Amino acid sequence: MKKEENFSEWYNAVVEENNLTDKRYPVKGLNVWPPYGWKAMLLIDSKVREEFDSRGHDEVNFPLLIPEDQFQKEKDHIKGFDSQVYWVTKAGDNELDIKLLLRPTSETAMYPLFSTWIRSHADLPLRVYQIVNTFRYETKQTRAFIRVREIHFIEGHTCHATFQEAEGQIAEDLDIMRGIARALCLPFRIHTRPEWDKFPGAYYTKAIDTVLPDGRTLQIASIHQYRNNFSIPYDIYFEDEDGQRRPVFQTTYGLSERMLGAVVAVHGDDKGLIFPPPIAPIQVVVVPVLKKGESEIIDKAAAEVAARLVAAGIRTRLDSRDIRPGNKYYEWEGKGVPLRLEVGKREATDKFVTAVRRDSGKKQSIGTASLEKDVSELLDSIRENMLRIATEREKAAEHRVANLKEIGPGLNIIWWCGNETCGKTIDEKTGSSILGIPEWKTSGSGRCIVCANETEIEAVVSKPM
Amino acid sequence: MKKEENFSEWYNAVVEENNLTDKRYPVKGLNVWPPYGWKAMLLIDSKVREEFDSRGHDEVNFPLLIPEDQFQKEKDHIKGFDSQVYWVTKAGDNELDIKLLLRPTSETAMYPLFSTWIRSHADLPLRVYQIVNTFRYETKQTRAFIRVREIHFIEGHTCHATFQEAEGQIAEDLDIMRGIARALCLPFRIHTRPEWDKFPGAYYTKAIDTVLPDGRTLQIASIHQYRNNFSIPYDIYFEDEDGQRRPVFQTTYGLSERMLGAVVAVHGDDKGLIFPPPIAPIQVVVVPVLKKGESEIIDKAAAEVAARLVAAGIRTRLDSRDIRPGNKYYEWEGKGVPLRLEVGKREATDKFVTAVRRDSGKKQSIGTASLEKDVSELLDSIRENMLRIATEREKAAEHRVANLKEIGPGLNIIWWCGNETCGKTIDEKTGSSILGIPEWKTSGSGRCIVCANETEIEAVVSKPM
Repeated sequence: MKKEENFSEWYNAVVEENNLTDKRYPVKGLNVWPPYGWKAMLLIDSKVREEFDSRGHDEVNFPLLIPEDQFQKEKDHIKGFDSQVYWVTKAGDNELDIKLLLRPTSETAMYPLFSTWIRSHADLPLRVYQIVNTFRYETKQTRAFIRVREIHFIEGHTCHATFQEAEGQIAEDLDIMRGIARALCLPFRIHTRPEWDKFPGAYYTKAIDTVLPDGRTLQIASIHQYRNNFSIPYDIYFEDEDGQRRPVFQTTYGLSERMLGAVVAVHGDDKGLIFPPPIAPIQVVVVPVLKKGESEIIDKAAAEVAARLVAAGIRTRLDSRDIRPGNKYYEWEGKGVPLRLEVGKREATDKFVTAVRRDSGKKQSIGTASLEKDVSELLDSIRENMLRIATEREKAAEHRVANLKEIGPGLNIIWWCGNETCGKTIDEKTGSSILGIPEWKTSGSGRCIVCANETEIEAVVSKPM
Repeated sequence: MKKEENFSEWYNAVVEENNLTDKRYPVKGLNVWPPYGWKAMLLIDSKVREEFDSRGHDEVNFPLLIPEDQFQKEKDHIKGFDSQVYWVTKAGDNELDIKLLLRPTSETAMYPLFSTWIRSHADLPLRVYQIVNTFRYETKQTRAFIRVREIHFIEGHTCHATFQEAEGQIAEDLDIMRGIARALCLPFRIHTRPEWDKFPGAYYTKAIDTVLPDGRTLQIASIHQYRNNFSIPYDIYFEDEDGQRRPVFQTTYGLSERMLGAVVAVHGDDKGLIFPPPIAPIQVVVVPVLKKGESEIIDKAAAEVAARLVAAGIRTRLDSRDIRPGNKYYEWEGKGVPLRLEVGKREATDKFVTAVRRDSGKKQSIGTASLEKDVSELLDSIRENMLRIATEREKAAEHRVANLKEIGPGLNIIWWCGNETCGKTIDEKTGSSILGIPEWKTSGSGRCIVCANETEIEAVVSKPM
């Protein structure tokens, strides 16, 4: 399957053939996580936990079902999600008095409790997150990890005494993203979404976008400043040091299984997946190059290599199945295992292994004396190389455009007057959209790509996946 | 709060006051997991994962929503759950063509896929598990961790070529239980449930019961032999070595947050919780006995002790809050931290800490030279002592009874003819029920406690929670 010829088909094939997902579940958009895919997701979750926990955020778990009356307290929020929620109307034989909805996100489940948890400034900041299943009734075409109806979701929620402290949290959220993205070998851009595209109920939204190989962009996370938009209707107030009762300032942070989708899309090649070592379910596969039983010395050497790597905490699989080594190479390359170690007669006798990198295909010999150290370093080098390649490609996808006709795949940098009318015109005329305002500060000015008015705002335009 | 005077009230108070659960969520039976309780549950989950993973079971994740038509393939199973399921009938503004139910358990979500995953004997055994939220519309009084409507659930599902291999899996399941129960310091009994009390659709059910302080019993896990009861209606067949198409033999294993409920109930005392060290969110709390800033040498010594324990992988909290040490002791005793280390002037000067065990209240000095080793050994000793005490109490709760009037709290051993009529009579006349047939083999015989017919069956009767 050629990635460059038909990215979309390639993606669908590669995630199914390599056991990341199983789409044969009898309801559209609800996919099964088989062991290999789920392991990758759990490893991403671990990385997310590490980043949150080390900064003092606490993991919690709130109920899935939200009563209709709690859901309806923030008007923009309802409007944004109303057409997408699943409704539980019946339990056993009883029609429910108050309908329950499956959380599309957990503001309206958490905030009634936050209102009881927070009393005074001593209770602030409150910083919690949860890793849960959320639900959105997608009407668009679904796609594994990228657009599904049951979403593996990570949501951070914080409450602060001041707007400035909430802004500080958003800066920390971007650090958290950097930590996670390093493990995923994913470059990303931060875009403040235009008003009409922010999270329903938010004061503003910063989205984390990554460029896909077909030139479209994928939002893999988003960070929202709520100001007091939810704390007032949900009655989340605190007593400040002067005894004054004031509404808290809130932020949220959403990340999802889309991170895995981005890993697949950005790193994979015509042979299949390529996993970044930090989240690879199997980091190293050890393959004896003669069939099992044909050479005792090879079997023994391969088993010893695998055992040593496992003991060193490296996720290692010894593949001693009774099939041809070539078939094994093919399979593990498809599954994206970052490093293959071949053990043949020469290797077993002369005490080395032949290492083959999945990222570059390059072969090299590693003496068994320094096995653990050399393998760790190779995995590090693979991680660095994967990030370097992805970053170069992302860089190449960026270009400045001076008129609507030039807008194409990738990240199009434009001058924009800031008005919604001009923003929407871009959509209509090009099929691409304003992702938002980038983080960098522009010096100078130009003319809006639509109305030609002088402006100091630069914006990024792309076709979102 | 006195545990012995009113166990039920004590339980409800102790889980809320010590932040294991928050019952203020606006829907009955749907509770919030605050950080402390969720951390304990995640530690139990880790132990469960370790036991399954080390035996080669794979973790998966199936969708929450099950279409009505898939649910209806096994008749007894439907009958067992029909009155308890939540129904999603609407999404956005659309009435759904096929109603979806929230999984009460995942047989009917998994088995249509198993039918595609399994082709030949080479695909067997299939052994997977998942850790998910399940839903049962409880009409009985709810109780945190013990009877809730959204259940934190661990379910293992296996498929085998023969009945005998499935029986072997059930033996392994009991080993898994032993491993988990060791970490929880919980003694347990295995009872083959009577026919009328088995899992809906099962061939037989072995339940794992533990005795609570009020003499009632709590089922904390159950293991089911399905034989071909599900594989035939769900079309899970394999081609055997002779090319014959045959239905697989299946088992399941269910464990839940009830394990945490049992930990609270069995180990706690009038002061609050007592956590077994392997699953304690905080294993050691270090308390400086002068207020912060009053003595630099104490602050420094306490911080160093905490840092060394953290580095040694022990979950440690340094409590340097500006409140009286006595208040800290009270709080951490309530939260069940197994070991408290006090650091005062004498300790800081003479290089030792005063260790206070939560299980026995005993104090002892530990020289800082051997800190990590001594603390680890003390935690081990606490674990052993907690299991010993719980096992003695469970043993004391067992008694043989010769007539219905003698049936009381605890485990009542009776002779039983094996007939349902006699079994149900026990229920009606005593309010206690037949838990089932114990694992031990009886020699000899006696007369059924109801009909007085000669029998070789011994059964265990208790009042289940």
